[in-house]
Amino acid sequence: MQPGAALAPAAELAGRIAGLQAGLAALGLDAALLRQNADLFYFAGTVQQSYLYVPVEGEATLFVRKVAERARRESALGAIVELPTPKDLPRLIAERYGALPARVGLELDVLPVADFRRLEKLLPGMAFEDVGRTIIRQRAVKSAWEVERIRASAAVADEVSRLIPGILEEGLTEVEFAGRVEAEARRLGHEGFIRMRGFNQEMFYGQLLAGPSGCVSSYLDTPLAGTGLSPSVAQGASFRRIGRGEPVVFDFVPVRDGYMADFTRMYSLGPLDAELLRAYDAALSVQEAATGAARPGATCRAVWEAALAAAAAAGLAGNFMGHGAGQVPYVGHGIGIELDELPVLTGSGLELEPGMVFALEPKFVLPGAGAIGIENTWVVTEDGVERLTLASQEIFVVD
Amino acid sequence: MQPGAALAPAAELAGRIAGLQAGLAALGLDAALLRQNADLFYFAGTVQQSYLYVPVEGEATLFVRKVAERARRESALGAIVELPTPKDLPRLIAERYGALPARVGLELDVLPVADFRRLEKLLPGMAFEDVGRTIIRQRAVKSAWEVERIRASAAVADEVSRLIPGILEEGLTEVEFAGRVEAEARRLGHEGFIRMRGFNQEMFYGQLLAGPSGCVSSYLDTPLAGTGLSPSVAQGASFRRIGRGEPVVFDFVPVRDGYMADFTRMYSLGPLDAELLRAYDAALSVQEAATGAARPGATCRAVWEAALAAAAAAGLAGNFMGHGAGQVPYVGHGIGIELDELPVLTGSGLELEPGMVFALEPKFVLPGAGAIGIENTWVVTEDGVERLTLASQEIFVVD
Repeated sequence: MQPGAALAPAAELAGRIAGLQAGLAALGLDAALLRQNADLFYFAGTVQQSYLYVPVEGEATLFVRKVAERARRESALGAIVELPTPKDLPRLIAERYGALPARVGLELDVLPVADFRRLEKLLPGMAFEDVGRTIIRQRAVKSAWEVERIRASAAVADEVSRLIPGILEEGLTEVEFAGRVEAEARRLGHEGFIRMRGFNQEMFYGQLLAGPSGCVSSYLDTPLAGTGLSPSVAQGASFRRIGRGEPVVFDFVPVRDGYMADFTRMYSLGPLDAELLRAYDAALSVQEAATGAARPGATCRAVWEAALAAAAAAGLAGNFMGHGAGQVPYVGHGIGIELDELPVLTGSGLELEPGMVFALEPKFVLPGAGAIGIENTWVVTEDGVERLTLASQEIFVVD
Repeated sequence: MQPGAALAPAAELAGRIAGLQAGLAALGLDAALLRQNADLFYFAGTVQQSYLYVPVEGEATLFVRKVAERARRESALGAIVELPTPKDLPRLIAERYGALPARVGLELDVLPVADFRRLEKLLPGMAFEDVGRTIIRQRAVKSAWEVERIRASAAVADEVSRLIPGILEEGLTEVEFAGRVEAEARRLGHEGFIRMRGFNQEMFYGQLLAGPSGCVSSYLDTPLAGTGLSPSVAQGASFRRIGRGEPVVFDFVPVRDGYMADFTRMYSLGPLDAELLRAYDAALSVQEAATGAARPGATCRAVWEAALAAAAAAGLAGNFMGHGAGQVPYVGHGIGIELDELPVLTGSGLELEPGMVFALEPKFVLPGAGAIGIENTWVVTEDGVERLTLASQEIFVVD
């Protein structure tokens, strides 16, 4: 076992499974059969080579091919059953539940076609429907226990951020600097993986971008991206040396015990010029406007429009969340076990609810000069939002 | 652009596309439409939000939604076309090629069902077949240019390995040690991502495991795994402090310019006991037997059986590639742009060919004591194999 790891308590898992069962009932499904690592972690509290079978009523069972012993140590689920081979699955389901289900929900948003077809052969006669959207919607609202996990993860970002002024020095390349920061994060328990749900979406710790690197957009749906080291991973830190007076954007995703926060702070070697400082003030005013609009019942659109209005009021609408073709139409995103969760703070009608957690990241791209902005992780409370990433919001100037 | 990045030359891309076209012709397909990042990197030399259309004859076109300008800088393909929205795809294909294809290959081994269904709606009337297996088979044989990329990546592992005796010290946790090593790798240009093709397969730099951590298996199909920091990422380095006399397994995947090597070396604080040293000698003898059997025309099974025989001759068959239920039935795997490529050195009839690159990783798990072994990356030559990871194969003892 991992000493000190925060294991999801039995009541927590029971509540999550009950939530999924309500979703299955609403869809008229008999059961769900889950495979994807992030969903297994959420509903079973352990990531194994396994199938989590959730009937619309009654106890869920985790069928584990590899490693059942670890699943039993890590998971508070009551029913963990060894699965010698996938072929045994229908027999074991029938034995435990008396019959096979007719209509089954699968994570069709992430399950590859070839794996889906193998399941169709393994479980002939069943009708399969997508429960990916249902799960994503459910996972958007965090329990108090989950908010504490995200708070602990945010504390890693706060601590790393505090250490950065001692790490940033003249002559470092972006990637050298990133590596030193990442080493501190590892020491503090960063797990490395940034899980993302979207096909082809990839993220490594976040993005550390200085000066012109902040103006480069990429295949990602992010306002900033950077060049990266090669066309293979065409985002993030590069071999470019960090220069004096350049805005250094440190966009960092801490992960502890499977939960993430998302966080951006600004650094520089020597002072930044007035244009950049004005843009930074604009980012703070966007943050104020957007968080002022965010409360239970407010739509994502209302928050997004408040952000847009504040950016326009600062005269920076054309630089907000990217520049030119690189502009992205959102100012924040849900976060938890995956980086790309709901709610997305874009022009959508989804209403905020207490327990939703999002990263709000107002950023401006000033062509030639660089990017500047701020990002914090927030939880929706009964009457507004609370900030979870607590580090100082000053620009850190290293001389 | 990324200065110094090794861009795939036009002739390299042309050869790869011609190879795929031969595969399409063999399958009776009119075209392939590729989406996945690793395949885009291989066939187009750039990773964008894009669709690579490869007709069975004629010029391929990369339709780029985001970012066309970067695609043009990074890719040596002649035809790069902006794609305003995915809806424009059928019209643009018809305009460039005179007609729409009837039978189209997709990467059904990695494409999620929901994305597949969106493509079905976007391109009505087309019949889709899987070309994932064809691509994987093609990519197993590396060009001379690719072997040079893997050699450059291997050099990162060699350099990091050389630095480790100066990093390992009394009192470090596994994850603290891992973080320091990873920072060196970053400085040397490690890109971070370890791309894997298999659904739910995940890897972060590799695994740094000391003593009993080496005896813990996981959801991964690897002989060793470790506990990790939490059930979320239940593999790799943990918070456990590295003790004196423990075998420290450093299994490390360097990545440069999108190409990986795979590499394991052993370290310890103070000397290892005789049982472990015997097992290490056995790993070297397995390596010798397996590489002696590896040559063009030899089956993967022949290499695997040579390895098994050498492990049995050392009296360690029950500890080879894991212990008990944790044993895995292979001694090596192909490597290149993804970590889980062909050939897999298991009981398969696939024949080795010149240009195939594989990692051979004979490892032994001794319950209670730890894991020990070696791993190198090899390329199949005209008459045997050549080692690409060149660091000393001695156990590094730090006193």
